[in-house]
Amino acid sequence: MNQPAPNFYHPAPRSQQFCSQCGHPLTRETPPDDNRIRDLCTHCGAVHYQNPRNVVGVVPILGNQVLLCRRAIEPRYGKWTLPAGFMELGETTEQGALRENQEESGARIQVQSLYTVVDVPSVNQVHLYYLAQVLGPELDPGPETLEARFFDLDRIPWNELAFRTVSTTLQHYVKDCQQGLFTTRHYAIDIRFPD
Amino acid sequence: MNQPAPNFYHPAPRSQQFCSQCGHPLTRETPPDDNRIRDLCTHCGAVHYQNPRNVVGVVPILGNQVLLCRRAIEPRYGKWTLPAGFMELGETTEQGALRENQEESGARIQVQSLYTVVDVPSVNQVHLYYLAQVLGPELDPGPETLEARFFDLDRIPWNELAFRTVSTTLQHYVKDCQQGLFTTRHYAIDIRFPD
Repeated sequence: MNQPAPNFYHPAPRSQQFCSQCGHPLTRETPPDDNRIRDLCTHCGAVHYQNPRNVVGVVPILGNQVLLCRRAIEPRYGKWTLPAGFMELGETTEQGALRENQEESGARIQVQSLYTVVDVPSVNQVHLYYLAQVLGPELDPGPETLEARFFDLDRIPWNELAFRTVSTTLQHYVKDCQQGLFTTRHYAIDIRFPD
Repeated sequence: MNQPAPNFYHPAPRSQQFCSQCGHPLTRETPPDDNRIRDLCTHCGAVHYQNPRNVVGVVPILGNQVLLCRRAIEPRYGKWTLPAGFMELGETTEQGALRENQEESGARIQVQSLYTVVDVPSVNQVHLYYLAQVLGPELDPGPETLEARFFDLDRIPWNELAFRTVSTTLQHYVKDCQQGLFTTRHYAIDIRFPD
């Protein structure tokens, strides 16, 4: 009876009403020596800056195949994605990408190089994908994944991919395979426009 | 008399005591379907995730010279740095780098390509530097800069640089100039060890 309802816990939204330091109601105001409006506490002086978040992941390659995971969570439940998720405190982008792969696909991998850096300002995110070599066919997907599966590069389910950062990263990979050259690419995605 | 003391306002520290949504005291606990301890609110259900921040900046080049700024703020007051600062909501890494250059040096620049991506997990940051061409010698440094100045590449004040993300980015640039090839580089800095 003391269990919370299934969806009781949820990520705190960006909008803030109370100071995390002293609990007083916040004011929206430009602090001294700043040039934009922040959530600030006139009681204790804490300024609550907010910043974009990084999503880190891998492009796990085994021979001529790429490993994709079918999402068991919203958003995009049931769609295919590359193993990726929010970067955590105390880790590098590469360590975060390794961790996300472990959690979502369970594949043994070796990270090779930073492949795409994708700005998505509409959702205040930067996505960073690493090329990774899969070291064996064994998979062990976690609870956020319905199914993990290797796809031939000419059988990628393009219409069933979860995110444009994923589809554009895979498009670059397929193209780069033809040339045999894989350099780091940077671009921005504006979700107001199609690819 | 109602003016706050000069250092009254300060960035809120990472540690959180109260819920930004409802003001109740927070609990440190692993939420359901998660695998690490978070600050969560057992009253309203908000989970207060925390994530690393991006620092975005430019390597402003004019011929054989690089533009550096001497810091008018802590940390590293008086040391030389590349124009850079925390990425803000609603912008891309490139837009943030342009904005920081405008604020700190006032130089007219054209951004060219993403140059270094540097993980600094000890301070929960990722630094991203863009190569940029300076379009004219006019400078207009803002209040965070004591002085902005162009340095010949063989006169960079190596012992007076503010941060290792800056010195390593400049080291790569000087080396790459000799080869004439400027690709995106990714590396991590562990502040427990010297370069």
